[in-house]
Amino acid sequence: MIYLDNAATTLQKPPCVGQAMLDALEHAGNPGRGAHEPTLHAARIVYHAREILATLLHAESPDCIAFTANVTQALNTALCGLVRPGDHVITTVCEHNSVLRPLYRLREQGAEVSFAEVDDTGRLRYEQFEKFLRPNTRLVVVTHASNVTGNLTDLAFVSAFAEKHGLTLVVDAAQTAGARPIDVQALGVDVLCFTGHKALLGPQGTGGLYVRPGLTMAPLVVGGSGIHSFDETHPSQMPTALEAGTLNVPGLAGLGAGVEWILSQSVEALHEKEITLTRLFYEKIVHAPGVKIYGSFDETDRAPIVSLNFGDEDAARAADILWEDYGICVRAGAHCAPLIHKALGTVEQGMVRFSFSHQNTETEVLRAAEAVCELAEEG
Amino acid sequence: MIYLDNAATTLQKPPCVGQAMLDALEHAGNPGRGAHEPTLHAARIVYHAREILATLLHAESPDCIAFTANVTQALNTALCGLVRPGDHVITTVCEHNSVLRPLYRLREQGAEVSFAEVDDTGRLRYEQFEKFLRPNTRLVVVTHASNVTGNLTDLAFVSAFAEKHGLTLVVDAAQTAGARPIDVQALGVDVLCFTGHKALLGPQGTGGLYVRPGLTMAPLVVGGSGIHSFDETHPSQMPTALEAGTLNVPGLAGLGAGVEWILSQSVEALHEKEITLTRLFYEKIVHAPGVKIYGSFDETDRAPIVSLNFGDEDAARAADILWEDYGICVRAGAHCAPLIHKALGTVEQGMVRFSFSHQNTETEVLRAAEAVCELAEEG
Repeated sequence: MIYLDNAATTLQKPPCVGQAMLDALEHAGNPGRGAHEPTLHAARIVYHAREILATLLHAESPDCIAFTANVTQALNTALCGLVRPGDHVITTVCEHNSVLRPLYRLREQGAEVSFAEVDDTGRLRYEQFEKFLRPNTRLVVVTHASNVTGNLTDLAFVSAFAEKHGLTLVVDAAQTAGARPIDVQALGVDVLCFTGHKALLGPQGTGGLYVRPGLTMAPLVVGGSGIHSFDETHPSQMPTALEAGTLNVPGLAGLGAGVEWILSQSVEALHEKEITLTRLFYEKIVHAPGVKIYGSFDETDRAPIVSLNFGDEDAARAADILWEDYGICVRAGAHCAPLIHKALGTVEQGMVRFSFSHQNTETEVLRAAEAVCELAEEG
Repeated sequence: MIYLDNAATTLQKPPCVGQAMLDALEHAGNPGRGAHEPTLHAARIVYHAREILATLLHAESPDCIAFTANVTQALNTALCGLVRPGDHVITTVCEHNSVLRPLYRLREQGAEVSFAEVDDTGRLRYEQFEKFLRPNTRLVVVTHASNVTGNLTDLAFVSAFAEKHGLTLVVDAAQTAGARPIDVQALGVDVLCFTGHKALLGPQGTGGLYVRPGLTMAPLVVGGSGIHSFDETHPSQMPTALEAGTLNVPGLAGLGAGVEWILSQSVEALHEKEITLTRLFYEKIVHAPGVKIYGSFDETDRAPIVSLNFGDEDAARAADILWEDYGICVRAGAHCAPLIHKALGTVEQGMVRFSFSHQNTETEVLRAAEAVCELAEEG
């Protein structure tokens, strides 16, 4: 089996991830809810995860990191917590439904939304941002990399735009956290939402958000916090403000171990390996007959994704053949990002997405490229 | 170490739980997001967890079970999804902050809330329910067992009351799911919220809610669903309606394994063992000098919890001594349930809570009872 569906979830985690999860399952109590060893052990696991994510993202402190069940919950938390009826939001057609659907819901409640468009390689038309500005524009939310095309968003541009106009900047880093260096302070990001189970190499069930110190938002979920139990409102200090109920301690143990492993290898080195594998795959298939590749490959830097179609062949059917005849795991369909498919004309066909990890080998990538060329030649 | 903090989280899980988690971590892709073996494996894990929870709770079908990160998120989902401004809700002073804080927030948005009180042993004053009724009363939310006193709620009474007056019944089963037989259909429960990491023996990071077929609620979190990607609204069919983004597949693998183990032992047998241990502990300490025990022990059936205080001694200090001098893990403080502490006069002092599991032994329980008697005699 050749697993090239890493943009959906990374399958090959370093062994330390599972070990950390088992250790937590066996020895961790409920964090912050008592003072015996198991509960203290749990609290240390959670703090370690906060600390190491703050290091990875260059956050001001571990308290800037709040954990959620997944990046979708993090994005819902940020958008529902920051956007009020009457506010105007600027976003892009590259967004995932985890951004779009909360925005559509906010629009029903009286918010307004503008969508920056893309060119025919899926590159954002940055010149539109300025034109969207209204007196009530309050927030910009952008994905750091499209999960469909792999194109990166120019965060330096968007950040400067947000700063110039006093807008809050929310970034969906589902495809990039762990896969490339991110410095939230240098980038001027206000909120960065991440998932644990992709490039951060943690287990599913983990995710969270970085929140710039001083920025407050209404919580999505309220309840037990282990502190200030007699207050009627959920505590307002980060990270408790955005966490209610028992955290996923085994999951966070695994996430902490995954991020620690990434830092031990260096994000830059892992990123370099992924981009090399992606480029190798691209070069081998770019001239295959009838293969249409989406996204922009002019830039050297991108997310390790190559999405394509074989002529007019249904993407799901092509993915099935890749799995059944070649044992290659890819993903077909709409990838939960409907507007980019509308923009690129693939609503009906979908796309076949190959997504790479540093855990993949050159041999695997060459085998996958061969499979694409064979399928292309069969027409 | 003697672990008697099972009402916070169960620490001793059957070995199959960790094994299932590791298997999922190594072999499961992202469920419902592709058609290759890892993604199908993940989908089967999730379906198995739904199926076995539906069996345990006697739900109509696996589709009645939606998963969340914890019971707090499940309760927020149910309460925010069902209560509208202008609605009146009946609840009790026994509730945890995971019920109270969402209700306080809904009250700020125009809902009304009445709280049924308790007698001096923490038993609910059921005669008050009828008096609270208003034309706009829409929902009753009650805990199945107090996490502070261990007293059970008479669900047959509350269910009949809700049915008589056409009210939706939401039950917080954080302390009871897995610990005692529950038949949602026979009990006439509309929504039952559960946590995975307590008596269900799964890992932290899991929980969910049973929703009676035909009952719909607005989702708390919206986003990617793997289906109907081009719709602007999140899919309305259960269980997808209440799940957005990637589920905690390793956690659900562990939860499924935990529940399967429970069913193999029989819930009744495990419950019988817990109640026997609880009763043994109670009998050994009931006459210890100066020890004040909270909750009602007249009924033979209760949650496996004994909360107490030593004279006027601060509960946290007593818990520290139990841990440091005896290696006994208990929990002290307010237990995130402020109103029951107000009712029982323990706001300042807190309570020391002993909570038992069928994984505890008689020897452990006798040792803990001895420790209580020694501390009591030391005054």
